[in-house]
Amino acid sequence: MGGGRQDGRNAPISRDDLALASAAEVRQAIRDGRWTSFTHGLAYGYVQANLAIVPERYAFDFMRFCHRNPKPCPLIDVTDPGDPEPRQAAVGGDLRTDLSGYRVYRDGKLAEQRTDLRDIWRKDHVGFLLGCSLSVDTAMIEAGIPLRHLAPGADGQDIPVYKSGVACRPAGVFSGPLVVSMRPIPQNLVVKAVEVTSQYPIAHGAPVHIGDGAAIGIKDVRKPDWNNYVEPAADEVPLFFACGVTPQAIAMASGIPEMITHSAGQMFITDIRLSASRLQS
Amino acid sequence: MGGGRQDGRNAPISRDDLALASAAEVRQAIRDGRWTSFTHGLAYGYVQANLAIVPERYAFDFMRFCHRNPKPCPLIDVTDPGDPEPRQAAVGGDLRTDLSGYRVYRDGKLAEQRTDLRDIWRKDHVGFLLGCSLSVDTAMIEAGIPLRHLAPGADGQDIPVYKSGVACRPAGVFSGPLVVSMRPIPQNLVVKAVEVTSQYPIAHGAPVHIGDGAAIGIKDVRKPDWNNYVEPAADEVPLFFACGVTPQAIAMASGIPEMITHSAGQMFITDIRLSASRLQS
Repeated sequence: MGGGRQDGRNAPISRDDLALASAAEVRQAIRDGRWTSFTHGLAYGYVQANLAIVPERYAFDFMRFCHRNPKPCPLIDVTDPGDPEPRQAAVGGDLRTDLSGYRVYRDGKLAEQRTDLRDIWRKDHVGFLLGCSLSVDTAMIEAGIPLRHLAPGADGQDIPVYKSGVACRPAGVFSGPLVVSMRPIPQNLVVKAVEVTSQYPIAHGAPVHIGDGAAIGIKDVRKPDWNNYVEPAADEVPLFFACGVTPQAIAMASGIPEMITHSAGQMFITDIRLSASRLQS
Repeated sequence: MGGGRQDGRNAPISRDDLALASAAEVRQAIRDGRWTSFTHGLAYGYVQANLAIVPERYAFDFMRFCHRNPKPCPLIDVTDPGDPEPRQAAVGGDLRTDLSGYRVYRDGKLAEQRTDLRDIWRKDHVGFLLGCSLSVDTAMIEAGIPLRHLAPGADGQDIPVYKSGVACRPAGVFSGPLVVSMRPIPQNLVVKAVEVTSQYPIAHGAPVHIGDGAAIGIKDVRKPDWNNYVEPAADEVPLFFACGVTPQAIAMASGIPEMITHSAGQMFITDIRLSASRLQS
């Protein structure tokens, strides 16, 4: 049951120690309290995932919503009600303890932040793991495509995120706009960015739009709904990608009474190899 | 509401008339009663699908089962409870009227065969469209790979289907063995068959096994559980593919009180182009 606070297993560990660790090793370090921060750069080569936990009553609606909107909500795993182990994505993993930060939303409002869900886990909780953009960012960087928010010295918030004017396909109680993130990409690398990201539908895949945000209903690109605006340079083109914030934003807006998510940047690390997920969802 | 029996729209139509028709035209012909037979060879280039309708109470379990077992159960569309229109796969389509034959199973037994579901459709019915092998068979034939059950003069039943010894990943009330079909493929085309079928996860994708059926728990390959045995020739190798019979067989075995399916070979024809589904699920 995680913990291990008595036997010294909670001695802190460095980012370098975990960069080349396996997904299971990083999950264990988080479970033991030895890693309490962001997961970017950890467990190189493994797919990281957004977490959304909803009551069973809403789970079939939410699963249909994800299946109908695979770009913002690439379904990696859905647990059985009450089962905290995501058996498809990480045998032995535990959604209650293996993330370093959680947010509990009640009636659409942030009610609580936690580092452990064991006290509040219920038999009707269903966990969804959805692909996140960390993986596709890694693939772009490896292909030589610079990303502003991951440049040396950058603020991790330097990736503007918008509610677009594009409607998601609704399902049951869930409906609302596609949320997109914007990355400025050098003009001569735009085609490569599309080629590379197309290969990873598990991580939002290819951009949903290239160019002027107005075409997808973003009124003022200088005013993101989340994070900081970054100005594309003269030789850069804005690329808009479906964003993992979409299902959370829509679940909040739909007024379901409870949803539990990861804290921003503190993802669940799956046993799925990014290389193995290439070109397949 | 389909029908049109008064205005002559139900004059019979030939297979040739429908071979190059659009998916919507073929669905209309079936809805009008002008086509009442198998759908193989109709609406060239469009993805055909298996149908499974279950009560809403079992739908979330069944959707998780499909998601966890994408080779036998490639999820194309899942309808909202009570909605007969598969809005992702075929806008304007109607699961109650657009198939030429249905089977109604109650308590695991075939209770009724129908050509129309309008009288028995309920608000808690959820329709699942799952990829079927017709599409991948087409791709193999186009790649020059001969298929015994589709050869000139062959019996459409010349494709043996087995319960294998491989367990599907369970979900809720659904668990049981993977059902596989066997195609004998000329030795020098085995690699090509894998390459081609890998591109169509929407239609069961690559084989699950090449060679001796005993390796996947088939005790006597000469005794299929469905259809006729075909003997591979000396220069042929048996290829085993995940089969769309899997979810039906498992739903029956799980003892759910009701399931409605297509009749064998009388599929739902989607608006999805096989070419557009290539390499994506």
